[in-house]
Amino acid sequence: MPYDKKLNQSQIAQTNKYNVFRCLIREGPINRAAIAKRMDLSIPTVMAIVDDLFKKKIVRSMGKGEFGVGKQPEILEIEPGRFFYIGADIGRGTIRIVVNNAAGGQIACMQEPTGDPFPEREFIGHVQKLILQFVEQHHIDAACILGAGIAMPGLIERETGKVIIAPDFGWKDIPLQDWLQEGTPYPVLVKNSTQALAVNESYIPGVDDVHTTFCVNLGYGIGAAIITGEELYDGAGGISGELGHCVVDRDGPLCKCGNIGCLESVASGEAITRQAQTIIAHHGSSMMTELCGGNAANIDARMVFDAANAGDGPALKIINTAAMYIGMAISMAVNIVDPDRVVICGGLIRNGPYFFEQIKAGMEEHLVAKSNRTLILSAGVNDEYSTAKGASRVFINTLWAQRALPI
Amino acid sequence: MPYDKKLNQSQIAQTNKYNVFRCLIREGPINRAAIAKRMDLSIPTVMAIVDDLFKKKIVRSMGKGEFGVGKQPEILEIEPGRFFYIGADIGRGTIRIVVNNAAGGQIACMQEPTGDPFPEREFIGHVQKLILQFVEQHHIDAACILGAGIAMPGLIERETGKVIIAPDFGWKDIPLQDWLQEGTPYPVLVKNSTQALAVNESYIPGVDDVHTTFCVNLGYGIGAAIITGEELYDGAGGISGELGHCVVDRDGPLCKCGNIGCLESVASGEAITRQAQTIIAHHGSSMMTELCGGNAANIDARMVFDAANAGDGPALKIINTAAMYIGMAISMAVNIVDPDRVVICGGLIRNGPYFFEQIKAGMEEHLVAKSNRTLILSAGVNDEYSTAKGASRVFINTLWAQRALPI
Repeated sequence: MPYDKKLNQSQIAQTNKYNVFRCLIREGPINRAAIAKRMDLSIPTVMAIVDDLFKKKIVRSMGKGEFGVGKQPEILEIEPGRFFYIGADIGRGTIRIVVNNAAGGQIACMQEPTGDPFPEREFIGHVQKLILQFVEQHHIDAACILGAGIAMPGLIERETGKVIIAPDFGWKDIPLQDWLQEGTPYPVLVKNSTQALAVNESYIPGVDDVHTTFCVNLGYGIGAAIITGEELYDGAGGISGELGHCVVDRDGPLCKCGNIGCLESVASGEAITRQAQTIIAHHGSSMMTELCGGNAANIDARMVFDAANAGDGPALKIINTAAMYIGMAISMAVNIVDPDRVVICGGLIRNGPYFFEQIKAGMEEHLVAKSNRTLILSAGVNDEYSTAKGASRVFINTLWAQRALPI
Repeated sequence: MPYDKKLNQSQIAQTNKYNVFRCLIREGPINRAAIAKRMDLSIPTVMAIVDDLFKKKIVRSMGKGEFGVGKQPEILEIEPGRFFYIGADIGRGTIRIVVNNAAGGQIACMQEPTGDPFPEREFIGHVQKLILQFVEQHHIDAACILGAGIAMPGLIERETGKVIIAPDFGWKDIPLQDWLQEGTPYPVLVKNSTQALAVNESYIPGVDDVHTTFCVNLGYGIGAAIITGEELYDGAGGISGELGHCVVDRDGPLCKCGNIGCLESVASGEAITRQAQTIIAHHGSSMMTELCGGNAANIDARMVFDAANAGDGPALKIINTAAMYIGMAISMAVNIVDPDRVVICGGLIRNGPYFFEQIKAGMEEHLVAKSNRTLILSAGVNDEYSTAKGASRVFINTLWAQRALPI
């Protein structure tokens, strides 16, 4: 076993301060005595910490409570305007941005089309401008911004925030974090989109007792991420969760990654579209042919789902096969990682409950020791800002972990 | 984020004491000043802790050092006879037992055939007797024994040490830990064999900087385990690492688990043997036919490897296919978990380097982002006591983590 991290007096004080701050965020409005009881601290300790937070204008008074008789305790809450942090989701063709206040509340969000991601440097400059302008529009002093978490699809180098490869963008070796940082007056942290999404989806307010969440992101591509407790497990090199490149059909098609029969090559939004195109071009006897106006090039995954939901045989075959492979791949991940929650997110499962149910059946068919698990499989909250929110959460969690909040 | 564990003064003292004790184990013989420097503690703090360890007879003096001039510092080391802990590996047909002293040194080991594991209660009674007798033979006072870690193949309920199912033993719902504990004068802890093996194989003395080890156990069955840092990650329910039941061939044979085409059904020692039997029975034109004296029932996996190593075509085909599937399954685990070390252990890779090289090729063929990984794939130390040693290590690590050592 490695040595334990040495503890000292100042760490005790810091841990107490962070716990009081967190208690104000999570359980406020709250009074000093209640914080002391909840955090198992003495009242003088809590009083000293709260005094300090008052001095730094991080906490504010809501006046005396009105219940009961006798002297009423002062009710405290986080000063919401004291600092802010940002999350941005650089998606294919669209950027989504959220701004949160110190208490974790979302105060603004926006989305805007971004167009082609080339040349990369210009595209990134445009993204930066959108973020800076959005903050300005809300009259937030840049000095009050702690920083921004940025979600980007693809393999991201953990230490540098460099995009190693982003197949959906056609990017390779792009120093995204460095370029965004230049000219941004607060810290910027780049993270993989699915990892950001997972951090958001695994967060259930008030629930601390989930051991491990496995989050799957089904969209144009397929990704996944592992959360243990509320912490992202991103592997030795930051590139865990590559569920989309698990080989599920050795006789399958060539995948963009260069291998054969990866999950992504048979079950992603792109693969579903491609399979529909082939059917329309060769046979043409499907509802899908109508939906795309007879032109196979116009079909998209949503039309395939619409046709399947309406009972079209060829479309159902595509959807059922994709769901079976996704379920099988998830079963492998569950066999290996043994999570107690699997959350399925992404555009593909916004097409009605049928696909989710088929994925569940596929997973159960291939899973070992089914009856010995307390596994909850559910669809994610999965709104269009989930990834941006997750990116902001990744950023603020990093400050928490590094004890780098200005408190 | 959940609240941080509250820190207090006594935890500082305890952490310091455990670090000094660990420093004596890992870096002893060593003097007080060197401990203080290594652990970043004051000399009076180290002196007080060492005095206490002297009083408890946990540390002993080796006299004054002889180097240099002037006053020589006293050299200290762990008193090896002060306490002991046990590891046992309940394998198919054989039990292996090791005894370690306080400094982690192995002082004795033994193995003995155990015969059929029925009736379960009697078998477990026999195992208990063997452990108690072995300790007695070495004249170790039971009061000096901290406890025993027991490795058992199969699904083990983490909280109770109950065998949920052990297909190789034909056991189901056997309260192994409770039955062993009855009549044993020290604590007993039951853990899955592959997890115990992994804890041993991931331990590299002096190396703390491995992020995540994925350990694969290829034998009669196939298992795996994940170690992050030096800690076992055993999932939400204690049953992570079921690599053997990842589906690699949807058109494959029925697996013992009830599913179709699991890795174990096409690439385990048992599957290799079964495939060889079929070839011998149907064709008979292989070196394997000679090796088993023409009787397919006599063939075992070792003979298949012997034939393959001698260039026999049908045997090579079996071995190559098994290696390809194992490599493919490992690539999936690596895609999902992103470890920086993969260690392959177990009986199957004791049959020469060819199989290992084929597995490596199979893994590389199916892995995504090969060039962005710093992945080391190696064969384990993998001696016949590795699992028993791992079981002892699991036990002592638990005491460390719970701060339950008598120091």
